[in-house]
Amino acid sequence: MKVLYAQSGGVTSVINASAYGVLDEAKKAGLEVYVGIHGISGVLRENLLRINDIDIEGLKYTPSAAFGSCRRKLKNQEDINKLFEIFEKHEIEYFFYNGGNDSMDTAWRLHSEAQKRNFPLKVIGVPKTIDNDLPYTDHCPGYGSAAKYIATAMMEATLDLKSMYADSTRVFVMEIMGRHAGWLAAAAGLGWLNGIGPDIILFPEVVFNKERFLDKVDETIRRKGYCSVAVSEGIKYEDGFFVADMGYTDSFGNRQLGGVGFTIAGMVRSELSLKTHVAIPDYLQRSGRHIASKTDVEEAEGVGREAVRLALSGVSGVMVTIERISNDPYKVEFKTVELNKVAEQTKYLPEDFHNEFEVTDKFIEYAKPLIEGEFFPPFKNGLPDYLVIEEVEQQ
Amino acid sequence: MKVLYAQSGGVTSVINASAYGVLDEAKKAGLEVYVGIHGISGVLRENLLRINDIDIEGLKYTPSAAFGSCRRKLKNQEDINKLFEIFEKHEIEYFFYNGGNDSMDTAWRLHSEAQKRNFPLKVIGVPKTIDNDLPYTDHCPGYGSAAKYIATAMMEATLDLKSMYADSTRVFVMEIMGRHAGWLAAAAGLGWLNGIGPDIILFPEVVFNKERFLDKVDETIRRKGYCSVAVSEGIKYEDGFFVADMGYTDSFGNRQLGGVGFTIAGMVRSELSLKTHVAIPDYLQRSGRHIASKTDVEEAEGVGREAVRLALSGVSGVMVTIERISNDPYKVEFKTVELNKVAEQTKYLPEDFHNEFEVTDKFIEYAKPLIEGEFFPPFKNGLPDYLVIEEVEQQ
Repeated sequence: MKVLYAQSGGVTSVINASAYGVLDEAKKAGLEVYVGIHGISGVLRENLLRINDIDIEGLKYTPSAAFGSCRRKLKNQEDINKLFEIFEKHEIEYFFYNGGNDSMDTAWRLHSEAQKRNFPLKVIGVPKTIDNDLPYTDHCPGYGSAAKYIATAMMEATLDLKSMYADSTRVFVMEIMGRHAGWLAAAAGLGWLNGIGPDIILFPEVVFNKERFLDKVDETIRRKGYCSVAVSEGIKYEDGFFVADMGYTDSFGNRQLGGVGFTIAGMVRSELSLKTHVAIPDYLQRSGRHIASKTDVEEAEGVGREAVRLALSGVSGVMVTIERISNDPYKVEFKTVELNKVAEQTKYLPEDFHNEFEVTDKFIEYAKPLIEGEFFPPFKNGLPDYLVIEEVEQQ
Repeated sequence: MKVLYAQSGGVTSVINASAYGVLDEAKKAGLEVYVGIHGISGVLRENLLRINDIDIEGLKYTPSAAFGSCRRKLKNQEDINKLFEIFEKHEIEYFFYNGGNDSMDTAWRLHSEAQKRNFPLKVIGVPKTIDNDLPYTDHCPGYGSAAKYIATAMMEATLDLKSMYADSTRVFVMEIMGRHAGWLAAAAGLGWLNGIGPDIILFPEVVFNKERFLDKVDETIRRKGYCSVAVSEGIKYEDGFFVADMGYTDSFGNRQLGGVGFTIAGMVRSELSLKTHVAIPDYLQRSGRHIASKTDVEEAEGVGREAVRLALSGVSGVMVTIERISNDPYKVEFKTVELNKVAEQTKYLPEDFHNEFEVTDKFIEYAKPLIEGEFFPPFKNGLPDYLVIEEVEQQ
């Protein structure tokens, strides 16, 4: 009985903790464990690595996809047939796919095909996304750490702005990931828990109105001298156009966004004549493992282990979800949802989690436990000592 | 006998540790201690805060200028006269100015004026700059922590790129501060100490040649599939023009730079047809106290204490410097240099610290001790618990 695990989609700083959970739990169950290099793309090329004899301890504190990710969707029945040939040849009976919406669609199609073929394959989805936009789960592994990174960065940059505003920069803008949902932009507001945060958050769920935004900046400057802004890359005008469309699409057909921070800052500079600074953390916010949330790391490992337990008990066609049992003390249980329900759905920031320019106490109450706890990586030479698996390098 | 301390110029994540050193040492000497709010600008407005009864312990782990910074230079003799009126009125006998090149010029002019007037004022400069471009000192407090931030960010983003390149982003570009000198850009290369770093570093000391750069990207992509690039905001074409001049100047008359990351990525996209991602950490790299270097924090506090010891022994008109006595074990001693020697000079990255696109082992040997050790801030609610001084807020 062999297990296959693979990683897919945009990475997080804790997806490898999920990998650790899956792989360690499967090894402990006495199974032979393989990993597909660069997700389903690698599996299609039979690029599989047996990991039973590889030291994977370091996955717990290494960001990004240690086994390589991919953005490939299943294109047609030919892809599916090829995969089942490979599953059969390598006697794969368990397949764990660690990803977001698109990856759950892939997992669902493989599960359905297995049923159709009466092929003894159990498929379980392991959730992962910094965007926190997967439905049917209270939150998603990857979000808590990205949220902690963003809130910390916003606090530190706002302290910087506050130091400088007297005769220099008056407005700081930080551009935050999150194409459709404002979960990450909202996270910028968490610094207020410790007294320092953004004055304005621009959510993708709120239609961008230039005049109202500039009025709010102006009012803030008059009141306190400086204005700190968190802007989601996904903000749109009333006509549905992204404020900062980059002009091309990625391999999943999604429009590439970027530079909205400069667009917004340009408005402030030209209309209000204020000096601005712009930060675009980009990849840093999703790979910032050095400031990961302990809660997030532990849950990421947990959903991985749960996926294996479910598959071994005969379950297939589901994604592991997290249900919040209580908030104080924070307590969760792992549940499941059918993969086809998750695929290609987006969970937006609820209306009572934000108003036009700020998060509500309800959001803060929701997000606070998710960023709790520190789980620093080991350091060597003054820098994080991340795991790079030699055997993956050689693939 | 009263002490006056003030902060000036772009902030760092450890300038407050220097503040702590100065203020604590002066308090211990039984002096009455005042702080100018927003540097010399605040002093000119008599915006002084007595800090003897304020708890300043948190300065050791709080980034940016807790007492506010400024970019103001002394404009004319009228400014100087006004300052001496204030020094006289408040019986200030010791003035500590914590800043970079421009601030040392201010300090020098006050020291000279005091001598001319036979006014009993001792002036000591406390060095601070993430840029590490102050002459006559082995390195400068603020650099080690910014270097540690940049190296860590580059490692994490490169791991991200390496996860994604198979069918998505192939080139990642991180834009790094440092208008004239390449010390911070070079720091991106430190990740190679732990096996993950940039493939290309573009230094301001090296004339930017688009063709050679694109050839190097192309060669790297062919060899390993992806290419990670660190670019200094200060890179220039052969004719001396900045590759990304923003089109305006700041209040010190310096050209504002920004967006070079997008310029460089645009070249890669249009000429090599490769998907790119761009990160611009901006303020985050100079205020990222959560990943500060312990060595840096301790030295920042140390130069502050040394400044007070010197002033109390009658010295004036100097900046505290750091001399490296040995590299392994790393050991430094504090020395001094006349303020007028420091002012408006720039220490560039030495030629044997870099080649066209990489740092040398000699640079790594130089920089490694400066990023050593972790000194995390306390955390509360999952976020750093930074000090915000109520009395400063009320000024």
